[in-house]
Amino acid sequence: MLVLVLNCGSSSIKYQLLDMKSVDKSEVKAIGVVERIGLEEGILTHKPQIDGEFKKYKFSNHIPDHEAGISLIMDSLVNRAYGVIEDMLDIEAIGHRVAHGGEYFSKSVLIDDLVKERINKLSELAPLHNPAHMAGIFAMEKLLPSAPQVAVFDTSFHQSMPPESFLYAIPYEFYTKHKLRRYGFHGTSHKYVAEKACDYLGVDIEKMNIVTCHLGNGASIAAIKNGKSYDTSMGFTPVEGLIMGTRVGNLDVGALLFLMEKENLDLKGANDLLNKKSGVLGISGISSDMRDIEDESWNKKNPRATLALNMYHMRVKRYIGAFAAEMGGIDLLIFTGGVGENGPESREEICSDLEFLGFTFDKNANNGVRGSLKVLSTPESKLKVMVIPTNEEQVIASDTVKVLRSAVLN
Amino acid sequence: MLVLVLNCGSSSIKYQLLDMKSVDKSEVKAIGVVERIGLEEGILTHKPQIDGEFKKYKFSNHIPDHEAGISLIMDSLVNRAYGVIEDMLDIEAIGHRVAHGGEYFSKSVLIDDLVKERINKLSELAPLHNPAHMAGIFAMEKLLPSAPQVAVFDTSFHQSMPPESFLYAIPYEFYTKHKLRRYGFHGTSHKYVAEKACDYLGVDIEKMNIVTCHLGNGASIAAIKNGKSYDTSMGFTPVEGLIMGTRVGNLDVGALLFLMEKENLDLKGANDLLNKKSGVLGISGISSDMRDIEDESWNKKNPRATLALNMYHMRVKRYIGAFAAEMGGIDLLIFTGGVGENGPESREEICSDLEFLGFTFDKNANNGVRGSLKVLSTPESKLKVMVIPTNEEQVIASDTVKVLRSAVLN
Repeated sequence: MLVLVLNCGSSSIKYQLLDMKSVDKSEVKAIGVVERIGLEEGILTHKPQIDGEFKKYKFSNHIPDHEAGISLIMDSLVNRAYGVIEDMLDIEAIGHRVAHGGEYFSKSVLIDDLVKERINKLSELAPLHNPAHMAGIFAMEKLLPSAPQVAVFDTSFHQSMPPESFLYAIPYEFYTKHKLRRYGFHGTSHKYVAEKACDYLGVDIEKMNIVTCHLGNGASIAAIKNGKSYDTSMGFTPVEGLIMGTRVGNLDVGALLFLMEKENLDLKGANDLLNKKSGVLGISGISSDMRDIEDESWNKKNPRATLALNMYHMRVKRYIGAFAAEMGGIDLLIFTGGVGENGPESREEICSDLEFLGFTFDKNANNGVRGSLKVLSTPESKLKVMVIPTNEEQVIASDTVKVLRSAVLN
Repeated sequence: MLVLVLNCGSSSIKYQLLDMKSVDKSEVKAIGVVERIGLEEGILTHKPQIDGEFKKYKFSNHIPDHEAGISLIMDSLVNRAYGVIEDMLDIEAIGHRVAHGGEYFSKSVLIDDLVKERINKLSELAPLHNPAHMAGIFAMEKLLPSAPQVAVFDTSFHQSMPPESFLYAIPYEFYTKHKLRRYGFHGTSHKYVAEKACDYLGVDIEKMNIVTCHLGNGASIAAIKNGKSYDTSMGFTPVEGLIMGTRVGNLDVGALLFLMEKENLDLKGANDLLNKKSGVLGISGISSDMRDIEDESWNKKNPRATLALNMYHMRVKRYIGAFAAEMGGIDLLIFTGGVGENGPESREEICSDLEFLGFTFDKNANNGVRGSLKVLSTPESKLKVMVIPTNEEQVIASDTVKVLRSAVLN
């Protein structure tokens, strides 16, 4: 079954075409991204798998809107020279990554009128993302009306959090009136790596206390108890929690108000500061990319880069400890995401003070592990530490197949 | 040595007159509070110790400013009917509780011109408190010029925090430009209970990882490593961290900006909301007092009161876990403050999922303990859990004596 996975942002569209051999086995046929939608010069980067390897093609053109962007993607997929399928109609289903499912969606769903109405309504909570997803859904309806569409939400896995985790200590009526609460994000990734690790270890996820660290440019941690999300570090917005590439993570709200006054920031200015100029970029003054920060710290002994690294690691440590305390201890600790998968030094640093939780860190096992599944704790350790590469597109495609199958059965 | 301890707020002055038999042994001669300074009708509540017990006297009058308030206190202390000393000049020293010592003060100091200049300068960071402290210092200079004055800071104990603990992930220049960083508060209390517990247990504080939970209407937790504050939950302002009576504690800054837009809040409105209408009051809609919340939850089965309790406890748990992770485990866990000293149910609930840290909670030892020193972990436990009643006035008086002695020696 050919599934097109779309992640429509406000000015970009990421895509992957997957051939689903079964629910959890797939082959990637093409991958790519449309950027600068609406600007004078848009760009399509298209990487089809041809003769067993991924080629790269780049095209520039004015791309006025999401429909034009998706049209370009379709044209590339069926192109004689660099396409991977004969006919657009070969695409049997579309899986959309949707940023915000609010309290409506605790799992992936077939997109119908009610679902569209709700995703649209949730634009209030995700003003940059949900309108873009809607544009993508409408464009596909127009371009490929025969293909069913499935929505896979970044928030839905975390809908199992108890009120103690998801509420803030603000007046309760702001929850009922504005649905102001913690939602959490990266749910697809947290769920995937937790399940994958339990499968690998041959343990029952229902009996495990798991902490999953999705550490990338955006970063979040989740506490997973009995297979369900129990808490997570991102909240109402993806700015809460860990220190990220350019996002501040946790910050005293009193400090924010002080800064808004001193720097004469309005709401937009404050949002920009906290989302785009903070995090490791703000601390180091160098870059939002952890690889640059590591290079500056290790090779150039830049003290602000070292500070940014230390703060980043300490915040992760704190959350692991906090989630251990919430769940009464941990059985399994998982690293994933760009830094989690490819940063052996970060993993070692984060684990360095955590052995009281019940494990011995196997430095040799950890060294050099980049992007592959691996156990990092010694065999005697009660608590298992693992690296699990995440694959959100795979989960979206897999969920798409599952939702369509169960729709057929019902 | 007779020491007058003053805690001057914006419209109130709390006082205690202590007879210091030695540095750590004292007798309280009188205790009281001036309230509603500047309003039409001010109030003085004066409780002198007469014939071995505390009597209570109440007076109303217009109290235009801090000098008038302190004059009234002095008059009461020397009054023939309800005073406790013969002459104002019997007071040998004044100890001031000062909210903010910024980065200038890492310990208590004798107040001189430079100290006054700095406390005044720090009014920018503590606009409600430091100007009131200055008013109190000036009033005492005028009324009792012979008595040396000592400043004991709420922040100074936490000046040992490493940059990883005290910096936020905002652009670094806001730290250098505005001194925007985490300071922490309640330092006097955290230091006192940690030292007291180590004394009691006969252990060396330099070798301990300690977590102190100061749980009251205002509440904070500290991580104390080798006798020094390593981290604490309050930050740039006392609104960060735990859920408090009316303070929000941690809140997604993105959620705050959303709320400011939706509710059309300006900076003052937002500050009021987060400081005065949030916390357990905001969640429960009932009261900021944990005793009321417990009553509503236990006896009236009010679900929002139960929710507020659960959220309050969970936040404490999270910090204990987070600080354990930062320090690589805990040796000693201490409860103090109104709720910490007098809430056996809260202590039991907070400890319920934490035994993986290395202790068994002794429910029998905990039951009924209100306001007295007690060990709550079983004798076999590696990690000791204790209740230690705090006494900030005692610490201020004791520090005053110590500072004056060392000033004499120098």
